[in-house]
Amino acid sequence: MLFPLAFLAPGGNFDLAFAMLLVFGSAKLLAEVAERFRMPGIVGGLLAGILIGPSGFGWIEYTGLLHALSELGVMFLLFQVGLHIKTSDLLKVGRTAVLVAVLGVIVPFILGWAIMAGAKHPQIESIFMGAAMVATSVGITAEVLASKGLLAHATSRVILAAAVIDDVLGLLVLAVVSSMGEGRGVDVLGLATSAAVSIIFVAAVVKFGSPTVNFVMPRLLARLKSQEAEFAVAFSFLFLMALLANYSGVAAIIGAFLAGLALSETIGKRTHTLASGAAELMVPFFLASIGLQMDLSVFKKPEVLALGVAILIAAMLSKGVGCGLGAYSMGWKNASRVGIGMIPRGEVGMVVAQIGLTKGAISQEVYGVAVFMAVMTTVLAPPMISIVYKDLAVPAAEVSPDELGADTRIG
Amino acid sequence: MLFPLAFLAPGGNFDLAFAMLLVFGSAKLLAEVAERFRMPGIVGGLLAGILIGPSGFGWIEYTGLLHALSELGVMFLLFQVGLHIKTSDLLKVGRTAVLVAVLGVIVPFILGWAIMAGAKHPQIESIFMGAAMVATSVGITAEVLASKGLLAHATSRVILAAAVIDDVLGLLVLAVVSSMGEGRGVDVLGLATSAAVSIIFVAAVVKFGSPTVNFVMPRLLARLKSQEAEFAVAFSFLFLMALLANYSGVAAIIGAFLAGLALSETIGKRTHTLASGAAELMVPFFLASIGLQMDLSVFKKPEVLALGVAILIAAMLSKGVGCGLGAYSMGWKNASRVGIGMIPRGEVGMVVAQIGLTKGAISQEVYGVAVFMAVMTTVLAPPMISIVYKDLAVPAAEVSPDELGADTRIG
Repeated sequence: MLFPLAFLAPGGNFDLAFAMLLVFGSAKLLAEVAERFRMPGIVGGLLAGILIGPSGFGWIEYTGLLHALSELGVMFLLFQVGLHIKTSDLLKVGRTAVLVAVLGVIVPFILGWAIMAGAKHPQIESIFMGAAMVATSVGITAEVLASKGLLAHATSRVILAAAVIDDVLGLLVLAVVSSMGEGRGVDVLGLATSAAVSIIFVAAVVKFGSPTVNFVMPRLLARLKSQEAEFAVAFSFLFLMALLANYSGVAAIIGAFLAGLALSETIGKRTHTLASGAAELMVPFFLASIGLQMDLSVFKKPEVLALGVAILIAAMLSKGVGCGLGAYSMGWKNASRVGIGMIPRGEVGMVVAQIGLTKGAISQEVYGVAVFMAVMTTVLAPPMISIVYKDLAVPAAEVSPDELGADTRIG
Repeated sequence: MLFPLAFLAPGGNFDLAFAMLLVFGSAKLLAEVAERFRMPGIVGGLLAGILIGPSGFGWIEYTGLLHALSELGVMFLLFQVGLHIKTSDLLKVGRTAVLVAVLGVIVPFILGWAIMAGAKHPQIESIFMGAAMVATSVGITAEVLASKGLLAHATSRVILAAAVIDDVLGLLVLAVVSSMGEGRGVDVLGLATSAAVSIIFVAAVVKFGSPTVNFVMPRLLARLKSQEAEFAVAFSFLFLMALLANYSGVAAIIGAFLAGLALSETIGKRTHTLASGAAELMVPFFLASIGLQMDLSVFKKPEVLALGVAILIAAMLSKGVGCGLGAYSMGWKNASRVGIGMIPRGEVGMVVAQIGLTKGAISQEVYGVAVFMAVMTTVLAPPMISIVYKDLAVPAAEVSPDELGADTRIG
């Protein structure tokens, strides 16, 4: 594009305004289109990324800035989800959640590995594909459930608790395959240490987070003179927990979720709504970034396309059935809700594929297949979630914007 | 810093969580400290940038990401200020605002040039310093006035209208000195064209913006099914106007201000609060980024320090007196409010200095002096604004968070 007067604009930043308009605007526009086809608005945001990115018109690349905005988006999303959940409610479903998470790791890993091995791919590629199919992207499901006002439902709590455990398990799988990708043996001691660190971090925040915050926060706020002090404290805590989570080997978004969880009993309505504003702004970048990272050009070869379709079907079935089995005690209807809610792989699957590619463990084509799997599970899951939760959904007109759960809605 | 388990965090982004925590957290913390010293909270945000940046502890550099977040922060700030002002109120003060803007350009330019010429600096350096002293950073003043609930006051409207005109004049000054910096002659035809384009853009939005939005918005929203559709439309419009402003040669923040102005009569309370959330999050990055760009190491030489102090005093006096004279018809008390409100140079003065440095027109030392002037006018102005507006300020306890102006407060 040509901007003849660009040099004249003091502080002019065409790239920024253009990127913001293109990503935010197209995500919101396609969310509206999706709603008209009775699909969750989130699907529109995902499709927007595919459409404006390299798989579509190629108007924009996935830059470092978009990556950062996307990370912030999914952090704010999980933070808000945490804000709507009480720790005690999460602990109640702990046993089921562990089972869901463990089966949801084992079944996809084995199925992914088996398909790749069957297609005569090298052992290391098969293992990476299995690993990429392990981790659930909980943001997508959380967003759909929040938009329907269903975060309080028992299955929602199982899905969220299982996603936290899944993240810890996924990190261990990733650590193992990373060392294998580098041709190193697995460092069992190092692995045990990092597993212990992450489990201690998560357990400590879940156990002591809420009581500590409930004690400290009112006393702290009573002493603060700044305007919107609660918002300032809440978001500083969010960023601190994201950093500590990373430092403990857990994903930043899990830290954000735990921060929300710890704050859920103290935060007032105004801070809730202000946090919604930050999320409303940033979440479209998270959604679009998933589609932006997909490149369909690897599918020119029919055998790669066939592999992509097989892996996609396996990814959906294995999580659906694996996690569903884990939640069987809740009845088959709730089990199917949990299974389908765990399907989206999103950004987490892509990180695994990215590491495999960087370490030279997988080919460009297998990378493309893994990204395709991650993106398409994420695009296909929301309509399926809508269907299995249909009989529970509160009619849109009855969900007031300030009700529980509704604050996290992103069109 | 060492992050031993970093490689284990899927999607881990230490830099992001660390930067967010450091910049946001320190800005909010020092805002609290500033409030306790009876200073505007904004001063804390500015000092935070100085403290954590190269002039202080050197914990963080001014990266592209921080620049982008800072640009978003000042865009959202001006957008919110626009949302609280009616176009018709702005037009009423048009004549005074033109006088304020014109005198506020001429007096600082001549004084800056004269001091540099008197200190025997080359002609081109003297001209660049004059140019760097021309442009007002309206965000700082707007934020202070908003936090006091004073956006509706006549002097606030004069300051805002004058800042818009000042931006157009500043762009012309910059265009002239840029061509001189490249050793080219001034392209009078090109200059006239770009002046015409920016004036037409601003005038068109001011004149037709509100009526068009008032007509289109209710009809559009009635047809949209997405949740938070008003927020989506408002922010898409904001980014579009920022892009168009850049394209017309005006700063993106002026586009954001005009977008807010056009939307001010239609936007509902919920979207107002959501927009506050986005601004609460981002404005600390704008504030801190100003201090982050300052590097005090050039002041090791006493003659540079002397020049810096002289330029700083000149920058404050020239805007104060020049703009004050322009507003003399409002009485000397209001005139002094307008004069002091136009003092902060902030990011705009720094852009001019940056261009001079890039084109080789000014030395590293003169660049340091210009940045020092831009930062220090910005740090010193808010307490002065507080003093001259003291007898008008609504006591903090009486400003409810959702009242006019109060939504834009950033601690």
